[in-house]
Amino acid sequence: MNSLPRIAFLGTGLMGAPMACNLLKAGYAVSCYNRTIAKTAPVVAAGGVAHATAAQAARGAAVIVSCVTDGPDVEQVLLGDQGAVTAATSGAIFVDMSTIAPAMAISLGERLRDRGLRFVEAPVTGGTVGAINGTLSILVGGPEADVAEVRPVLAAMGKTITHCGGWGAGQGVKLCNQIMGAMNLLGVCEAMSLAHGMGIDPEILIKALGGGAAASWALQNLAPKIIAGNWAPGFMVDTQQKDMRLVAQAAEQAGVALPGAALVTQLWRSAQAHGEGSEGIHALAKVLQRLSAK
Amino acid sequence: MNSLPRIAFLGTGLMGAPMACNLLKAGYAVSCYNRTIAKTAPVVAAGGVAHATAAQAARGAAVIVSCVTDGPDVEQVLLGDQGAVTAATSGAIFVDMSTIAPAMAISLGERLRDRGLRFVEAPVTGGTVGAINGTLSILVGGPEADVAEVRPVLAAMGKTITHCGGWGAGQGVKLCNQIMGAMNLLGVCEAMSLAHGMGIDPEILIKALGGGAAASWALQNLAPKIIAGNWAPGFMVDTQQKDMRLVAQAAEQAGVALPGAALVTQLWRSAQAHGEGSEGIHALAKVLQRLSAK
Repeated sequence: MNSLPRIAFLGTGLMGAPMACNLLKAGYAVSCYNRTIAKTAPVVAAGGVAHATAAQAARGAAVIVSCVTDGPDVEQVLLGDQGAVTAATSGAIFVDMSTIAPAMAISLGERLRDRGLRFVEAPVTGGTVGAINGTLSILVGGPEADVAEVRPVLAAMGKTITHCGGWGAGQGVKLCNQIMGAMNLLGVCEAMSLAHGMGIDPEILIKALGGGAAASWALQNLAPKIIAGNWAPGFMVDTQQKDMRLVAQAAEQAGVALPGAALVTQLWRSAQAHGEGSEGIHALAKVLQRLSAK
Repeated sequence: MNSLPRIAFLGTGLMGAPMACNLLKAGYAVSCYNRTIAKTAPVVAAGGVAHATAAQAARGAAVIVSCVTDGPDVEQVLLGDQGAVTAATSGAIFVDMSTIAPAMAISLGERLRDRGLRFVEAPVTGGTVGAINGTLSILVGGPEADVAEVRPVLAAMGKTITHCGGWGAGQGVKLCNQIMGAMNLLGVCEAMSLAHGMGIDPEILIKALGGGAAASWALQNLAPKIIAGNWAPGFMVDTQQKDMRLVAQAAEQAGVALPGAALVTQLWRSAQAHGEGSEGIHALAKVLQRLSAK
């Protein structure tokens, strides 16, 4: 007999599918839903049950996890006609692991609370590799007691679980993560452009500078892909641009000027204009190279 | 009897003095010179001999190290009226460890070669802490045989010694280092501005994001100083701006567009305008905060 609660998992895409599989591995029963039902296949293969609507997947589940692209998608899957809220039991906790606007997370929390339901936001960092290995960093926002209740569920999917504050704080920290990752990558791309222009082997940057003040995750992990000309996405330009739009909106609401974030967003827009939106974010290097026409 | 060659050390400032002391610790005899002679005191206390001119310090030395601020300073101390070249023995190798323009390093190499002297450039990263502990990263440019000959001398001052290519390549890699360090720091400052504006504890950024795609030396080492409001320099804004000027010149010569490096240079200029030029480079955080008037 399985004593762990049943979890509904809404959104089994590149991130969601391996995360749901890790819940199954940890012993949870998982009912799942995805708009394109074919994408539930890996979860079903691992022992999950697929449903035709979010409502059906959510029926009787103790925890309802959503992991979709943007705020309107979360609204649809939770509050739409056949959304999870229509079928959720009153004690259920909703855990949204998508990256959405902090203001939208606050709004969702309030709307669910008004229906007697509980809401926790839990956006993640660590990419598909982290999702597969269960090593995601999870940035949680919501009431203390609710966060404590879902912590074991989150621990099945991630390694570092940080309670950042109330609704919106987890999403806010996620946006800070995107800013830093973006600027670190811009630094790598500009350094590699200068090295290229000066006839310096860019491998030297990784070897000679990886241990000091230039050190970053981007230098260690994305510079080798740039050198190899491998533009396959770990994380896509189009998705990053969705996140940069959230950064710009949150900054505007908070009255905060972010010139670097604005610049790198424009440069990624150029990548999109050149048809590189579905390549990895490190396609930024090609934008910089084109700027210098080399 | 000391079998190690005597080294002349020209420029015993914040970086040069501890580097010269590490040469003494490794068993080299050191004769030194500094424009302001009082700054030779730590080297003399460690067993070195101070001289009134660069020429006097260089007389009879096998290796002549210079570690000053900028290209014109190197020219003065090597090629000026009482410069080291006037007294150097013909087999001597010059090792310039200052951060100067790659084009200037090439020019110095050529001018010394024309006088029958040898030249190696060896700018460093790792700051005063690295200089004191002998853990600098040293970015070497010059002819293979000359680099091999001075490698033991460099090994007394640094941990990672990378031969980057011919004259100019070591300086070029150093400039790439400055670009990445600058952009990583700008990312930290903008993330902290957004966190501040959203009412999020900035400590969370370090704890929750230090292991993932946002990770950088700046997040680990400079963010805590920013949170503490400790603006004491590890590396000064004014000196960083000298390096950013070298970046801009090298990029112009190579025909490389560096919009991010240009932006952060302008922001540091604002720090200088506010009288923060002799504070640490992380005073950039105050520029961002003032932009948002919080």
